[in-house]
Amino acid sequence: MTNQSIPDLIAKKRAGGEHTRAELEQLIGGYTRGEVPDYQVSAWLMAVFLNGMAPQETADLTLVMAESGEQLDLSSLHNTVDKHSTGGVGDKTSLILTPMLAALGLTVAKMSGRGLAHTGGTIDKLESFPGWNPELPEDRFIAQAREIGLSLVGQSKDLAPADGMLYALRDVTATVESLPLIASSIMSKKLASGAQTIVLDVKSGAGAFMKTLDDSRNLARAMVDIGNRAGRNVRAVLTDMDTPLGHMAGNSLEVQEAIATLNGTGPADLQELCVTLAAEVLLAAGQETDPARARERAEATLHDGSALAKLEAFVTAQGGDGSLVRHPAGLDVAPGRAEITASAGGYIAGLDALSVGRAVLALGGGRERKGDPVDVGVGVETVRKPGERVVEGDVIYRLYHRDGRGLERAQELLQGGIELSNTPPDVKPLILDRVQ
Amino acid sequence: MTNQSIPDLIAKKRAGGEHTRAELEQLIGGYTRGEVPDYQVSAWLMAVFLNGMAPQETADLTLVMAESGEQLDLSSLHNTVDKHSTGGVGDKTSLILTPMLAALGLTVAKMSGRGLAHTGGTIDKLESFPGWNPELPEDRFIAQAREIGLSLVGQSKDLAPADGMLYALRDVTATVESLPLIASSIMSKKLASGAQTIVLDVKSGAGAFMKTLDDSRNLARAMVDIGNRAGRNVRAVLTDMDTPLGHMAGNSLEVQEAIATLNGTGPADLQELCVTLAAEVLLAAGQETDPARARERAEATLHDGSALAKLEAFVTAQGGDGSLVRHPAGLDVAPGRAEITASAGGYIAGLDALSVGRAVLALGGGRERKGDPVDVGVGVETVRKPGERVVEGDVIYRLYHRDGRGLERAQELLQGGIELSNTPPDVKPLILDRVQ
Repeated sequence: MTNQSIPDLIAKKRAGGEHTRAELEQLIGGYTRGEVPDYQVSAWLMAVFLNGMAPQETADLTLVMAESGEQLDLSSLHNTVDKHSTGGVGDKTSLILTPMLAALGLTVAKMSGRGLAHTGGTIDKLESFPGWNPELPEDRFIAQAREIGLSLVGQSKDLAPADGMLYALRDVTATVESLPLIASSIMSKKLASGAQTIVLDVKSGAGAFMKTLDDSRNLARAMVDIGNRAGRNVRAVLTDMDTPLGHMAGNSLEVQEAIATLNGTGPADLQELCVTLAAEVLLAAGQETDPARARERAEATLHDGSALAKLEAFVTAQGGDGSLVRHPAGLDVAPGRAEITASAGGYIAGLDALSVGRAVLALGGGRERKGDPVDVGVGVETVRKPGERVVEGDVIYRLYHRDGRGLERAQELLQGGIELSNTPPDVKPLILDRVQ
Repeated sequence: MTNQSIPDLIAKKRAGGEHTRAELEQLIGGYTRGEVPDYQVSAWLMAVFLNGMAPQETADLTLVMAESGEQLDLSSLHNTVDKHSTGGVGDKTSLILTPMLAALGLTVAKMSGRGLAHTGGTIDKLESFPGWNPELPEDRFIAQAREIGLSLVGQSKDLAPADGMLYALRDVTATVESLPLIASSIMSKKLASGAQTIVLDVKSGAGAFMKTLDDSRNLARAMVDIGNRAGRNVRAVLTDMDTPLGHMAGNSLEVQEAIATLNGTGPADLQELCVTLAAEVLLAAGQETDPARARERAEATLHDGSALAKLEAFVTAQGGDGSLVRHPAGLDVAPGRAEITASAGGYIAGLDALSVGRAVLALGGGRERKGDPVDVGVGVETVRKPGERVVEGDVIYRLYHRDGRGLERAQELLQGGIELSNTPPDVKPLILDRVQ
């Protein structure tokens, strides 16, 4: 502990000073324990927003947050790896990447969240498999990761509770968009999650939290730096999020697309992202030194059936109907269909990812509030992608609805996000940059 | 009302924007009404601390604070004037100045505070007159001001409650030392107090809130600007507060010194300050245009008995023993005496005003907490002042104690504040600057 009062600590940051770890423990650890009131922390957050934080200070804050609650102990497992995405629309990457990593001999023992608002959650997607259970006792969770290389459960532990408390306070005090606060928020959960190697998929663009490449790169650098200072292997890949990934958005539809990708027949952008991320994990974890060879090994798991077998074993081990991995047509897909067609000929200049996420929500495939039920069967298929040429009447979106629920609103949202042009648009590459 | 959310308003100040009056009403008015929580206001206060406030914005904030509670209605009185001191040690100015102003034909109808910690309060000093009553019904308060030109009561109304709430929050969030927040805090109470003309005695130096002349001048300018924008006549005088004013500190002792000054036989520095302030009031209120003539008229009230007569009439009207104004030796002065002498010969380079205030407190002449009883009879006499030459053994301080209570601690404090030197020190003038 330090001998300073809380106002002294706030005054230090107000003057642009750099906190020690002990000071951050006093302030933020104290806040988590209910010893420091929110009105002092919010003044400090504004001082951080305006005066910033130094790299070591940001890492120390993250460690204090990571240690504010329970932490996953993965020390009995070898080569533990984790992946984090900064969120986006139609991001079924975890469903593909985690079995790939297991097939590559690495260990994934991971807690995942549920979807909220326009972003989906891996747990919701996995619940497309009837019987699949997101809750495991800790010993089974660890044992399954050791045996199969993959266990994935809902957030049962209270990991980094300081993060939730700080986020709620930032949300109402205009202190959300601060780089050190965003980076420490994300990394505190990852550090508490216990994996030795972490790969970060930092989304950039309209559908993402970070709208510009510069902002995304700065966030990636800050998070990699935090991880390295905490003794973890961390790399980040910056990826485009102006348009949805793959073609499918909606729980069962995304699972079907993930299974196709694990069969080597998925959309090119989705496969490219998964191979890139898996290769980065191999390199970061020291399991491979040659980048080209890392990509080859990662891609092979999609063609030799090894990743698909891992998914099947994993779904089965957690009580799900694993046969659906081989027969994905059996997954629950809503029977209603509707289409949105091009109103004129031309090039697709842009498809707003956010409006796709909101359309899925309108159809009942997401939740407005925690605890809302989710219809796994509904969703949106992006039939044509930016850069492609269309003639009037070509189908751009296909909607999968249940008895027309939310259909009109979803159509409105999708229609509003379509941008056509007469000349071929510049289409950004999927992989924008790497940070290590 | 505005259509913005509170986080929108915080974000505006975070980005250095300038609030409208309606926005400040939503935020600070809302805080006072309990609609806006403290954690949002503290984030906003830190943004103000770091990004500042524009002059009109500061004036608008002050008006919102002034209107947050009850306000004194002095509209039935003519030439209402008020004086405010930013606080200091041994400041008996109000006891002298307010009868002077009444003698000059102006009207003082004023609420005053009690002392806290090392600073005294005018109400405590007036209670040295047995029977004097600090509480008057509002109609008598106004009628007495109309008849005598002077009524002075304790703080019975809840003037500018926003100020108290904001100050308490600033105190624990390291946002006290902000110029617009200090200026609006002081001026909100003055505006709510209703006088048309306000003269500000802004103290500068070791015993004052503002330690440097530049800070004091900036504060004075900000307060004068607020007052002018609110349609009041406001002037400020910057005065030295490195050493105590006059010779006496302690309630009865200060009243005796004030009466001597009203008889034209007070200490030169105290008389100079009172004449200067009274002259500024005459000029500010438009009762005189020639500065030299204003000083003459002010000084005359100390020699023709008119100011003393006003004090006597005022004390009597509020139930006090007015005969003590003519026979001040009858005031209760503690019988115990002790002295602090020069430990060596030389010049007095400095006498710390703060240590004098703390010594009076130690002797029982002030209060640590609201509601503590006060011994009006104890105090400290500053026998010699900075710049004077002393030989070893010369008396510098005389203590007036009751049965030795707190004497040792008071002696320690005073001893620690004496600075001797071998060469004549620079002594700052009492009147440092004027701001209008």
